[in-house]
Amino acid sequence: MEIREFQRLIRQIYLDRDQRRGADQTFLWLLEEVGELTRAYRRKEDNAGSEMADVLAWMVSVANFLGIDLESEVLKKYPRVCPLCSSSPCTCPFR
Amino acid sequence: MEIREFQRLIRQIYLDRDQRRGADQTFLWLLEEVGELTRAYRRKEDNAGSEMADVLAWMVSVANFLGIDLESEVLKKYPRVCPLCSSSPCTCPFR
Repeated sequence: MEIREFQRLIRQIYLDRDQRRGADQTFLWLLEEVGELTRAYRRKEDNAGSEMADVLAWMVSVANFLGIDLESEVLKKYPRVCPLCSSSPCTCPFR
Repeated sequence: MEIREFQRLIRQIYLDRDQRRGADQTFLWLLEEVGELTRAYRRKEDNAGSEMADVLAWMVSVANFLGIDLESEVLKKYPRVCPLCSSSPCTCPFR
């Protein structure tokens, strides 16, 4: 599934209630999902993948609020190479 | 771009250095990017989209570590309807 298609799907399912809830409350929910992902990762639970799906869903909800097209941003930032060294694999100094 | 293709792209660019850094340090970097997105959102800066691209990139780096295919998880969790009420738009009690 394309990133853009997923963002459109989430808009269709949730935009009305996202707008009722408001941008700040929606962003806070995104952070709650990040917390759930962190807990699943730290505890080595088997739901980390499901929590990642939730993080992506809430992030595109926020993107819908802000008029951001996540797929365009991804293609702009990561044009098949590292955005800093312009290589693949990345050859930046190791951090 | 498909979610799976983006995950593969990030694996190609960064897997070697992600593995040198280790899973925990890579997860912490994901959380740092979430912080940068939160700052951009709170301050209404114009880089929120770019920070969302970074959050997605670091999240699929962690997924690569854990053997998670994010696109499969997304399709499992959001099969074109709300996973709780099975409707689109969502008809769950408002939260």
